[in-house]
Amino acid sequence: LVPLHAAERNVLVLNTGGTIGMTMHPGGLAPEPNALVNYLRKLPFLHDAIYAEQSFLYEYYSYADTLVLPLSEQKKRIVYTILEYVPLLDSSNMTPDDWVKIGKDIEKNYKNYDGFVILHGTDTMAYTASALSFMCEHLGKPVVVTGSQVPIYEIRNDGRGNLLGALLIAGQFVIPEVCLYFNNKLYRGNRTTKVDAGSFNAFCSPNLGPLATAEIDIKVNWDEVWKPDTQDTFQVSTDLSCNIGLLRIFPGITCATVKAYLQPPMKGVVMETYGSGNAPDNRPDLLAELKEATDSGIIIMNCTQCLRGVVSPTYATGTALTAAGLIPGSDMTPEAALTKLSYVLAKTDLDLKAMKEMMGKNLRGEMSCQGKPELGLRDS
Amino acid sequence: LVPLHAAERNVLVLNTGGTIGMTMHPGGLAPEPNALVNYLRKLPFLHDAIYAEQSFLYEYYSYADTLVLPLSEQKKRIVYTILEYVPLLDSSNMTPDDWVKIGKDIEKNYKNYDGFVILHGTDTMAYTASALSFMCEHLGKPVVVTGSQVPIYEIRNDGRGNLLGALLIAGQFVIPEVCLYFNNKLYRGNRTTKVDAGSFNAFCSPNLGPLATAEIDIKVNWDEVWKPDTQDTFQVSTDLSCNIGLLRIFPGITCATVKAYLQPPMKGVVMETYGSGNAPDNRPDLLAELKEATDSGIIIMNCTQCLRGVVSPTYATGTALTAAGLIPGSDMTPEAALTKLSYVLAKTDLDLKAMKEMMGKNLRGEMSCQGKPELGLRDS
Amino acid sequence: LVPLHAAERNVLVLNTGGTIGMTMHPGGLAPEPNALVNYLRKLPFLHDAIYAEQSFLYEYYSYADTLVLPLSEQKKRIVYTILEYVPLLDSSNMTPDDWVKIGKDIEKNYKNYDGFVILHGTDTMAYTASALSFMCEHLGKPVVVTGSQVPIYEIRNDGRGNLLGALLIAGQFVIPEVCLYFNNKLYRGNRTTKVDAGSFNAFCSPNLGPLATAEIDIKVNWDEVWKPDTQDTFQVSTDLSCNIGLLRIFPGITCATVKAYLQPPMKGVVMETYGSGNAPDNRPDLLAELKEATDSGIIIMNCTQCLRGVVSPTYATGTALTAAGLIPGSDMTPEAALTKLSYVLAKTDLDLKAMKEMMGKNLRGEMSCQGKPELGLRDS
Amino acid sequence: LVPLHAAERNVLVLNTGGTIGMTMHPGGLAPEPNALVNYLRKLPFLHDAIYAEQSFLYEYYSYADTLVLPLSEQKKRIVYTILEYVPLLDSSNMTPDDWVKIGKDIEKNYKNYDGFVILHGTDTMAYTASALSFMCEHLGKPVVVTGSQVPIYEIRNDGRGNLLGALLIAGQFVIPEVCLYFNNKLYRGNRTTKVDAGSFNAFCSPNLGPLATAEIDIKVNWDEVWKPDTQDTFQVSTDLSCNIGLLRIFPGITCATVKAYLQPPMKGVVMETYGSGNAPDNRPDLLAELKEATDSGIIIMNCTQCLRGVVSPTYATGTALTAAGLIPGSDMTPEAALTKLSYVLAKTDLDLKAMKEMMGKNLRGEMSCQGKPELGLRDS
Repeated sequence: LVPLHAAERNVLVLNTGGTIGMTMHPGGLAPEPNALVNYLRKLPFLHDAIYAEQSFLYEYYSYADTLVLPLSEQKKRIVYTILEYVPLLDSSNMTPDDWVKIGKDIEKNYKNYDGFVILHGTDTMAYTASALSFMCEHLGKPVVVTGSQVPIYEIRNDGRGNLLGALLIAGQFVIPEVCLYFNNKLYRGNRTTKVDAGSFNAFCSPNLGPLATAEIDIKVNWDEVWKPDTQDTFQVSTDLSCNIGLLRIFPGITCATVKAYLQPPMKGVVMETYGSGNAPDNRPDLLAELKEATDSGIIIMNCTQCLRGVVSPTYATGTALTAAGLIPGSDMTPEAALTKLSYVLAKTDLDLKAMKEMMGKNLRGEMSCQGKPELGLRDS
Repeated sequence: LVPLHAAERNVLVLNTGGTIGMTMHPGGLAPEPNALVNYLRKLPFLHDAIYAEQSFLYEYYSYADTLVLPLSEQKKRIVYTILEYVPLLDSSNMTPDDWVKIGKDIEKNYKNYDGFVILHGTDTMAYTASALSFMCEHLGKPVVVTGSQVPIYEIRNDGRGNLLGALLIAGQFVIPEVCLYFNNKLYRGNRTTKVDAGSFNAFCSPNLGPLATAEIDIKVNWDEVWKPDTQDTFQVSTDLSCNIGLLRIFPGITCATVKAYLQPPMKGVVMETYGSGNAPDNRPDLLAELKEATDSGIIIMNCTQCLRGVVSPTYATGTALTAAGLIPGSDMTPEAALTKLSYVLAKTDLDLKAMKEMMGKNLRGEMSCQGKPELGLRDS
Repeated sequence: LVPLHAAERNVLVLNTGGTIGMTMHPGGLAPEPNALVNYLRKLPFLHDAIYAEQSFLYEYYSYADTLVLPLSEQKKRIVYTILEYVPLLDSSNMTPDDWVKIGKDIEKNYKNYDGFVILHGTDTMAYTASALSFMCEHLGKPVVVTGSQVPIYEIRNDGRGNLLGALLIAGQFVIPEVCLYFNNKLYRGNRTTKVDAGSFNAFCSPNLGPLATAEIDIKVNWDEVWKPDTQDTFQVSTDLSCNIGLLRIFPGITCATVKAYLQPPMKGVVMETYGSGNAPDNRPDLLAELKEATDSGIIIMNCTQCLRGVVSPTYATGTALTAAGLIPGSDMTPEAALTKLSYVLAKTDLDLKAMKEMMGKNLRGEMSCQGKPELGLRDS
Repeated sequence: LVPLHAAERNVLVLNTGGTIGMTMHPGGLAPEPNALVNYLRKLPFLHDAIYAEQSFLYEYYSYADTLVLPLSEQKKRIVYTILEYVPLLDSSNMTPDDWVKIGKDIEKNYKNYDGFVILHGTDTMAYTASALSFMCEHLGKPVVVTGSQVPIYEIRNDGRGNLLGALLIAGQFVIPEVCLYFNNKLYRGNRTTKVDAGSFNAFCSPNLGPLATAEIDIKVNWDEVWKPDTQDTFQVSTDLSCNIGLLRIFPGITCATVKAYLQPPMKGVVMETYGSGNAPDNRPDLLAELKEATDSGIIIMNCTQCLRGVVSPTYATGTALTAAGLIPGSDMTPEAALTKLSYVLAKTDLDLKAMKEMMGKNLRGEMSCQGKPELGLRDS
């Protein structure tokens, strides 16, 4: 039986909480501890009890919370172990400390598993996926964040399909990225944002196509999958700065508001500007306030408040903001820009200039490269 | 000829600026004054010079900047007069003062025109359309805001089509709303948001279908068109509060940030929460801060940061925020909620309670009604 | 326990075959008899074994193949009995005889059930749903056709979700139509067509929105649901004509081809024309051939080969075809038009004129009403 | 001035007719001869009269119907000459003879122009684009077919934008394909089909993404653009077979119908089958009829009646049809398969075997390669 188990693919599932594992309580839906594994055991497509018994799976793995999928279409056996967090969290309640915990758990178990699945609430899932993408340095294995809009214990729900798809991808495809899997699509995690609070199709990746689609067949778009350019060892950076913020501009925003928002200990701000990175250039008071802030060492990223779009250094329109010291954020989502700031600002070995350079650089596929001339026109 | 002119439909075009009327200058695209009318005169589908001459149009109207469309498919003559603002504004530079100016111009000319078109930059167009929808009380004629992503002077652009569609709708359909027309679709203005900085299809109305589509035929979805329930006289409310703000929450947001943002003279804040209106309920410090603010008279609206979704008072998840005094914002866009705050907070004849009630009520179709039980299930 | 069972909703599932119940055989996927019920029993969300036991369900219903769903979100108990066809059919192999069998089974069991689910292959599902919609006269209960693109026995599949959704709708909502449920959407059956051979989102209803969507909540679009205008007794018309055909025109189609296709015993043809119902009007040979056919009593329907679009009698473009005796098919799909022909041509009590009138009339919501002037323009 | 003109790009526009150039006549819309050029001269964005005069354009080119665009965004001058067909044709009336005429005109003028635009009605545009793609052998310059849903003479129409986009692409981008440009998208012509009779977005390319999109910028997807693999000389093959047909199967199709359709002089048939290329395999009569036809030398292509999907030789489901001699058509549209048959069957120097091989091979990007194993799974 040892060779049998040696051929298995192993996935670690970190169950952090979220709607997927909630049940109805007097005050509304709330996470239900110690219930998920027992429930999954009853679902034959999520646990092959016969194989488990015949192969002495529990004896071999010695973890109580180990389950095994039926043989996949690709003829692989995926064994998965669920590590349940205590307490389980509604994702609205997650903080950078929880990201650190997840990161550490991936690091600690990195060598023993082929891939990782993070069960998570949808509300802050795009933030967590973005944060993990930066924290995980030199990642060589798939980390797939997923969850659901309806609890897996309900009759009709999206949790079964999301968990299953995430397991099949994490266990079988070498996509060395922090991804988000939802509603039959695999996205790069730091490209996602939650766009719909009421539909199973809750997420989108506005400026990058999906990495894979799971319809009748699972089709990976290998051209888009991130190719790491280093051979360095995987490690998780767990230092994160909390002195960060998001500031969306709007017509008539007062200088007082901006000033208040930029006061110490603020260190980094994602400014959600108009269109392709525009802001008033007829408001010297506002621009002076921003200039003062960047002069004093605050990093301000210029990201658009449009769902889709690019803030490029080549556009004239953002000139006033660039002059005020803002860094063009290309097509980063607010979630990606914010968590990147949190990651970069905590690198105490870097000086401000190096941090700013890092913020403007593509680290994990979170932004489209800038300045590259578009070679669309081919002269005959 | 008088009867001829009497049968015409009259539209006033307020040209406030924006990309549609920009030309290339050394520092980039910038509004070009005194150019639009002359350019439009050269486009036969936007000006019927022969009719103008034969009907002594200029003598009759005595405005230099009056043009006339060819006979429409619906056999109407639409005469339009362009009033150009000085200076023309990039919409990034527009402020509530500009909204007031637009509102006053509509009010001043209300009786003399069948409809109004506002040419405007796209960057803040959704804000302006939202603000005008509240400022225009008891509106009985169409006000159509439009513009373009590419200047009308460029060879290939979306300005010609957008202006033409806006004129045809404002001149022929009694849609008594402030609308936004873009890329062949007419939306309720206070439902829109700019979602794409790089496409002609720049706007969407995430929680309400279009009021009309202009494909081979112009089809109005009359079921969705707003039916005013009063017979009061049209008037424009030009008092707007500037002590307002948008605060998007994110994991790890510090209490200091929230406190700084809510400090005086702040009077009203749109809080962009997670999903269906969620925020951490395990952060007593944060909730206390919010409670203190609402107790002190600040109105805080609970709106989702998801593009689509509803924040409803019936969800348990937002309980903590409701307890902290926040008002559920249903499916209002941030643009609508913010400008509604600006409008309501300036009603000095109202006390705080009345203002709060007004904020939670559907005033101009900007939000779906709440509390109405969904009668989806019909028992046999 | 009797009152308990009395409160249950009863659904009859006719399992005709199709991918949903296939397993891999040496020659490829093939229907697997006597397997579905046993498999469903193992899925707790499709069968509540504890309730079944405690309520003596099997004793009460005395059918071996009766299962019961867990309590639904709407607090209903749906008991369903599966009637498996012998042999199970790949839907490519289904014929009008099979439609008759399904129709008779519905008729026979009509009084004893609240709704019906038809499990069916996807290849001809839109044809079957269309045919049943005509055969079922004065239908007062939901008949929901569904199936899947991947067998329910596979790990990752769309069969579980499709079956579950169909059961929940058939058992709880009084939608008195033959519907098709697929990928979280309920369509009017005679409006559907299979548009994608490789995706879970295999069907669309090109000219009518969905009757219901099943996302986080099941939302029925009651405005679109068919309201029967008679109080007549439900009956199934099982006479169907087989002398029918589909003829798609294309540039250069020869007269010989058309002539060959229209030769006896052909009685009715759906001609798939261009755009809004156009065909060459400079081909007197072709038009004469068509005229001769309609004169001889063949009914020819003019339907568009475009996925979306309307063939209206008011368009000038189809004049030549109308002159040749073709009947404008409005926005009927080819599947609907063909099965409607099959149904109408078998009404031996009708003369040709009455049959033609019936073909041009909206019988089951399969076509948008014609000739109704669109009141889009409202003059002030 | 000669160097000035030498730097210009030259496009030949073949105006074959269609809605784009129609005006209202007593019997409905009909093509209006000798009107287009004069109308275009009045539109400054489609003709730069000042440049034409200053550069002595008419003297230089000596064609009456030569116009010149204003300087493009890419700083090119595109001069275009319109060759108007007599008579102008409604595209419903076009036949393979018209395709031959277009092909010959391209061949005759090939050396003198940088690109070609074909103005054409929408009804059979996808057929013409498909046919031309096969007829044009070793094409090295862009041929862009376009037209509109609303005449260019109407106030609001899609003709201006479609013509302009087609000219800018044909004059500036070396896309050596027969393309179809519509509603801001450039498609490979033999991949298109008309899907909407009532919208400006009338075409789609169901199994291949657009070659280019023309939003704020024109972006070419160079990865998808066809790379010719030979250096042979461009030539137009003008032999086309007319003994071809489209046969869509449906449940209950009679053997008599199939037999009638396949009778001489039929030489090639596109059979529109179910799903991934399925047909009844329990109908020996039908299969025998098909076998007899293919044995007798008729080529039958197996294409799906689904809008999207692939008929692959590797699927078991189509086994019976392959055994009956049908050739799997991959993801070819019916339009492409039909015109390819017309082209291949006319190659009298080829024997039947060679013709069949040619039909199963990708000639002009009209089908996705078959048999290529999908390397989706990458083992670690």
